[in-house]
Amino acid sequence: MAQKPSIPKGTRDFGPQQMAARNYIFDTVRSVFRSFGYSQIETPAMENLSTLLGKYGDEGDKLLYRILNSGDAFADVDFGKPLASQVCEKGLRYDLTVPFARFVVQHQGEISFPFKRFQIQPVWRADRPQKGRYREFYQCDVDAIGSDSLLCELELVQIVERVFGLLGIRVCTKINNRKVLTGLAQVCGFPDRVVDITVAIDKLDKIGLDAVVEELLSKGLTPSAVDVLRPVLLLEGSFEQKLSAMRKLMAGSEEGLRGLAEMEELFGLIRSAGVQMPCEMDLSLARGLNYYTGAIFEVKALDWQIGSICGGGRYDNLTGIFGLPGMSGVGISFGADRIFDVLEGLGKFPSGLASGADVLFANMGRAELDYVLPVAAALRSAGVSVEIYPEPAKLKKQFDYCDRKGIRFLSICGESEAAAGVVQLKNLASGDQRSFGREDISGMVAFIAE
Amino acid sequence: MAQKPSIPKGTRDFGPQQMAARNYIFDTVRSVFRSFGYSQIETPAMENLSTLLGKYGDEGDKLLYRILNSGDAFADVDFGKPLASQVCEKGLRYDLTVPFARFVVQHQGEISFPFKRFQIQPVWRADRPQKGRYREFYQCDVDAIGSDSLLCELELVQIVERVFGLLGIRVCTKINNRKVLTGLAQVCGFPDRVVDITVAIDKLDKIGLDAVVEELLSKGLTPSAVDVLRPVLLLEGSFEQKLSAMRKLMAGSEEGLRGLAEMEELFGLIRSAGVQMPCEMDLSLARGLNYYTGAIFEVKALDWQIGSICGGGRYDNLTGIFGLPGMSGVGISFGADRIFDVLEGLGKFPSGLASGADVLFANMGRAELDYVLPVAAALRSAGVSVEIYPEPAKLKKQFDYCDRKGIRFLSICGESEAAAGVVQLKNLASGDQRSFGREDISGMVAFIAE
Repeated sequence: MAQKPSIPKGTRDFGPQQMAARNYIFDTVRSVFRSFGYSQIETPAMENLSTLLGKYGDEGDKLLYRILNSGDAFADVDFGKPLASQVCEKGLRYDLTVPFARFVVQHQGEISFPFKRFQIQPVWRADRPQKGRYREFYQCDVDAIGSDSLLCELELVQIVERVFGLLGIRVCTKINNRKVLTGLAQVCGFPDRVVDITVAIDKLDKIGLDAVVEELLSKGLTPSAVDVLRPVLLLEGSFEQKLSAMRKLMAGSEEGLRGLAEMEELFGLIRSAGVQMPCEMDLSLARGLNYYTGAIFEVKALDWQIGSICGGGRYDNLTGIFGLPGMSGVGISFGADRIFDVLEGLGKFPSGLASGADVLFANMGRAELDYVLPVAAALRSAGVSVEIYPEPAKLKKQFDYCDRKGIRFLSICGESEAAAGVVQLKNLASGDQRSFGREDISGMVAFIAE
Repeated sequence: MAQKPSIPKGTRDFGPQQMAARNYIFDTVRSVFRSFGYSQIETPAMENLSTLLGKYGDEGDKLLYRILNSGDAFADVDFGKPLASQVCEKGLRYDLTVPFARFVVQHQGEISFPFKRFQIQPVWRADRPQKGRYREFYQCDVDAIGSDSLLCELELVQIVERVFGLLGIRVCTKINNRKVLTGLAQVCGFPDRVVDITVAIDKLDKIGLDAVVEELLSKGLTPSAVDVLRPVLLLEGSFEQKLSAMRKLMAGSEEGLRGLAEMEELFGLIRSAGVQMPCEMDLSLARGLNYYTGAIFEVKALDWQIGSICGGGRYDNLTGIFGLPGMSGVGISFGADRIFDVLEGLGKFPSGLASGADVLFANMGRAELDYVLPVAAALRSAGVSVEIYPEPAKLKKQFDYCDRKGIRFLSICGESEAAAGVVQLKNLASGDQRSFGREDISGMVAFIAE
């Protein structure tokens, strides 16, 4: 019985073209992560639900994919109680951060700290699928855990610069600090309103000063509190000028001043290291406010309209939930799907990414095969990728195959070539054709490498 | 509240050492697959259960991981009917073959045939975990679909030779043909007993001729049928001698003779292509008897006791279940976990796989950082991987970090180096230490590359 095949909503197949483009992104970030001394790890797709539940808020819990217990999952069910929690003990990874925290705690005896790890794996969320939002997508996370040195933050900024430099995407990195946001809430007298205040400030560009003031008042801030915040909304000038204005405002908050000192030190390190990518202080950055405790990062593409393509921050107690307190870490995550969209939108993918083998030997029949098989094998041993067309089909068909797969060289060795002991190689792009002695593998390799 | 963190039974974390070793295997097979013109694809971890169910037998259906529908999965349940099928529509990939068949049918309009693809992804099975058997493990599959040329079989044999040659594992490839097995069952008069006959023949080495005869009789074969099979059990000599004996025996079976002709042609191609790896005809090979229709392969390590480390075969109608008949394909699958065990057992992993960065700059304090940061950045741009120790810790501690991470060069730039404008680099293995002008990046790179 024939079934019409399909895949679950929000998931994707990646064919040869897309895989080549995606591998280009993954290979780039991987090589940069390694050049800074980060090591790769992988964790299982399935985690115990006890590891995942309660880590992403109520909304996140709902978006977890749960896996039915194997065997007869419903054998011992108490139908008076919620079923899902009785029949499912495992769930699919929702992000790479919680599994990383679990990994660090579980393997703390084997890990040498500071531990610099990266992880490139898919995650799953039962979110409503829409343009650019999938139920299965890859995350590329890089974290340093076990040191509170701001050199770790600098390294992440340098990684961002290098990755997007290699990919040819112009970006700006926005930097905020959770301690500064806490300080702001303190000095205006509403220390428990960090989120409301940050969310309102974030809208400044979109809705203007008056509307932001209105929103703050509507959230219950007093007019005098708003007056304290007003200089932040009007902040202008260089990094130093902003910093000095903020210092005055923050005089009453020890934590706020510490946040400003961290910002100043980080920007100093960025200058020292010769980072050319634009980096700016952005007090409206509220990303991941629930768990970040220090620096907050967000990276925007300058030439393509899209949300942030990379982001992260410092967390002081990620592993605390698993029983290992006092472990400070900082990390960022690269969004492979958005980076893909930017590269495609800007036409920045290198050409020929998905091209096939270097050479196709046409199939001229069984007798000629005996002649070309050892040549093909020798070329492969010399590092050339080689196909032999599987069937003695019409040359037009074999030629089309070359064309569709982007194979650059065609070799047609028929009876006369075999009799003469030669191998013809034709560069399909230039039309340049040369003849080599059958044993002259190095000559062929040189021609192909030209 | 602290939870004791763990992962589900039968799953694994891979730390930096294991990942480096696994990547060595994956990178090797990937490079070989590419050198033969195969393209990578990926399919989603979740497939519709309608795609998966009924493809792996009753036992396989039980081993599928089912994913609870999102939202309120139990809202519309009829408790008079089996629950699992009402609350789960998706399952985790059980192998890479069925998703590949689904992919080919779903995307047949975009694919140019013959389609040569490889796929390296994890699969999940709710099997009882035991030594060497996991609930999540990677498969590395390579298949050519859309051609029934035996050149495809040859290519797989060449791929096996090249992969294990690069990995340094001596192997033997055993080759059988489903048509020959069918022919055997036909000539002895029990055409529906292919499996029983093959399973019995397979035990020859272990239990001896008499016990095999006994087993065949106990399965209901007549003594005269067993007499027909006896020459197969006594088969000896060269490939040609075996072939000629089998030809005589098979005279009454068209399909059996076709199988022998295929074997002869494949072994001829193997000879023509100059394959050095031992390949032998093995009529007891029964692997995947349910779906293979032609060649059957199995690869055994010669110097390490373990099951087959690679295997596959030709299937004539894999995509038929999804509505695309007449699509012949052939493929093999490399078992990453067993290959890992063989490499580890034989001590064949290259040394230094998991080594860290090339250079560690010791952290001598904030002022010295300003001096080394641009040097570190310039070295990275020149392709050197560089770490800077994040904190100005005691040198002993920084040195230990180097040692644990296998970092080869240490640079200590203190006040005096900064004053003199030099950078010291010490090769920790040889003890060789040199001094470079701070701008002499190419000198440093050359020293590190030595």
